[in-house]
Amino acid sequence: MRIGDRDWRTVWMEGGVARMIEQRLLPHRFEIFDAVTHQDTARAIRDMIVRGAPAIGAAGAYGLTQVYREAPQGGGRVEFIERGYELLRATRPTAQNLFHALEYVRRAVEGEPAERQAEAALAAAVEFADRDAEACRMIGVHGAELIPDGATVLTHCNAGWLACVDWGTALAPIYAAHRAGKKIRVLADETRPRCQGANLTAWELMQEGVPVEIIADNAAGYFLRRGEVSLVITGTDRVAANGDVVNKIGTYEKAVLARENGVPFYVALPTSTIDPECPDGDSVTIEERDAEEVLCARGMDESGTMRTVRISPPGAKARNPAFDVTPANLVKALITERGIFEASPYGVAECLQAEK
Amino acid sequence: MRIGDRDWRTVWMEGGVARMIEQRLLPHRFEIFDAVTHQDTARAIRDMIVRGAPAIGAAGAYGLTQVYREAPQGGGRVEFIERGYELLRATRPTAQNLFHALEYVRRAVEGEPAERQAEAALAAAVEFADRDAEACRMIGVHGAELIPDGATVLTHCNAGWLACVDWGTALAPIYAAHRAGKKIRVLADETRPRCQGANLTAWELMQEGVPVEIIADNAAGYFLRRGEVSLVITGTDRVAANGDVVNKIGTYEKAVLARENGVPFYVALPTSTIDPECPDGDSVTIEERDAEEVLCARGMDESGTMRTVRISPPGAKARNPAFDVTPANLVKALITERGIFEASPYGVAECLQAEK
Repeated sequence: MRIGDRDWRTVWMEGGVARMIEQRLLPHRFEIFDAVTHQDTARAIRDMIVRGAPAIGAAGAYGLTQVYREAPQGGGRVEFIERGYELLRATRPTAQNLFHALEYVRRAVEGEPAERQAEAALAAAVEFADRDAEACRMIGVHGAELIPDGATVLTHCNAGWLACVDWGTALAPIYAAHRAGKKIRVLADETRPRCQGANLTAWELMQEGVPVEIIADNAAGYFLRRGEVSLVITGTDRVAANGDVVNKIGTYEKAVLARENGVPFYVALPTSTIDPECPDGDSVTIEERDAEEVLCARGMDESGTMRTVRISPPGAKARNPAFDVTPANLVKALITERGIFEASPYGVAECLQAEK
Repeated sequence: MRIGDRDWRTVWMEGGVARMIEQRLLPHRFEIFDAVTHQDTARAIRDMIVRGAPAIGAAGAYGLTQVYREAPQGGGRVEFIERGYELLRATRPTAQNLFHALEYVRRAVEGEPAERQAEAALAAAVEFADRDAEACRMIGVHGAELIPDGATVLTHCNAGWLACVDWGTALAPIYAAHRAGKKIRVLADETRPRCQGANLTAWELMQEGVPVEIIADNAAGYFLRRGEVSLVITGTDRVAANGDVVNKIGTYEKAVLARENGVPFYVALPTSTIDPECPDGDSVTIEERDAEEVLCARGMDESGTMRTVRISPPGAKARNPAFDVTPANLVKALITERGIFEASPYGVAECLQAEK
């Protein structure tokens, strides 16, 4: 997607170097981080220079191509590759997409002679990244049909291209509609406690030239009730077999408020996000993250230094559930790369069986 | 209310000095500000050392007693008093309660000879503050009956004693139930953008020994849906004749989510907050405050300095409505010093006609 006068991906490969946008500095500084060795790439994933399940997957895939290239052609090659694979796999122990990516590359290399493995791995990693970008592009194509000219779209958290390889999920339909010449604008929930909406969603949309205004999470209901929102689109971390949506804390609030005010609520996702083994949202264990995220806020001070400030009394306690469950009946439809599907057991099954 | 080992009010008078809690330093430091002259008191109101409509009213009343004391007994007395009155009145141009307080004191002095005016003014100011404290105490008495032993109460923003002279509005029933020995705990919405929940509500409750946990505004729906909230109580800035409630941005969201999950939603207020001239909530013009409040966060850094950090991209835009409207049908009841009333045209009229 666009930054300044050219298009970028979050992560890509150039002459053996895995290059990626340094996301920890956004939205305050735009820098590219160069991971020269597979160890650099592993560190970049672990330290969250790259974030978002699909982007992490692609970075891992590129990292594994570095492993095959760096491995000695003679003795110790197998052990080197195994160690590199495990190093990459251990960077984010719950990142399902990362494991898929590493497996995808490893399988493509199987049966190849040692001297052809690096090339085969690179081809597979590029394919993995391209497929993610293409899926997101298609989410945009299908989702854009739901956005009328002149619409105001409310979104929550960051399900944009910075979390993917390109295009994003919730933001892909917005980008597609904008590029098709529709006049649209976005209200971005700031999304406490980590403020990915204020940080990343606003920055992405501004770079692409889409009009965006940040609002406190508290204000979404106000704008919905006044009829100032045409539709809501969010991303999701997991969709259950019955169509329930697990996503960033606060998503459920927006879904209830959208229905109360007769505003359609959509969830955008690549089909790979559907977990057919998960019967419903309430079967998912919700992670409670560090209370300090709620007790503090992080941003840039006047001197340009990133700083954490405490917004609560010394010794205060907090609860910090990271995700919530939006029941399927609050979701108007699922927007996927295969088309638009009902958020229901029937719709989910239909999506999984659809032509790829 | 309790801080450390003694009870405090937000503002009180001692030997001609208006003493008040320096609220701009909370929750990080507890200090008393001494306003020696009426000019000091005016400055304290204007600079928000004291905040919350009832507390501002009491501070203004005390300030006016200083005017009568400081005025020359001979020539220029009338002009001095008039100038002092106007100075205090101009400190917060929209503070209805401040105007009432100043009028209350001025009327009590009318007809008194010059040498008795200071004394009459002081008696009236003390009476004004005591009446506010007593109204809040009675809100607590009535509201505590709605809080069962073992309850978890969700509240939004700060409608505690720091905004009043004593006891508070939304928090008064919580304090009364706690002092009566009920085991209760509180979930406090942080209440972005100004975080009065994380700052002030949490601090107040901690001082009084009421168990409290701060949550991101996004998490209220999560806890309501999981059945972890017994009831919701908020304050209000204005109640319309039909029972609609105007209050801090985000109140409407919590009311919708409470109803969705079958949890009672109460609003606590002194009867003086009812505006019988206002037909409904949507007749009230909603103030949009400075976008910087949403684009930044304010708190204390590691070195103990209050600091503002930017949580959004340079040049980003934001919208910042300060209040929203909660329709009367979402409010289970109004808790007032006169008892519990239905949030409806009938209930509001009944409350206004009730025995004082």
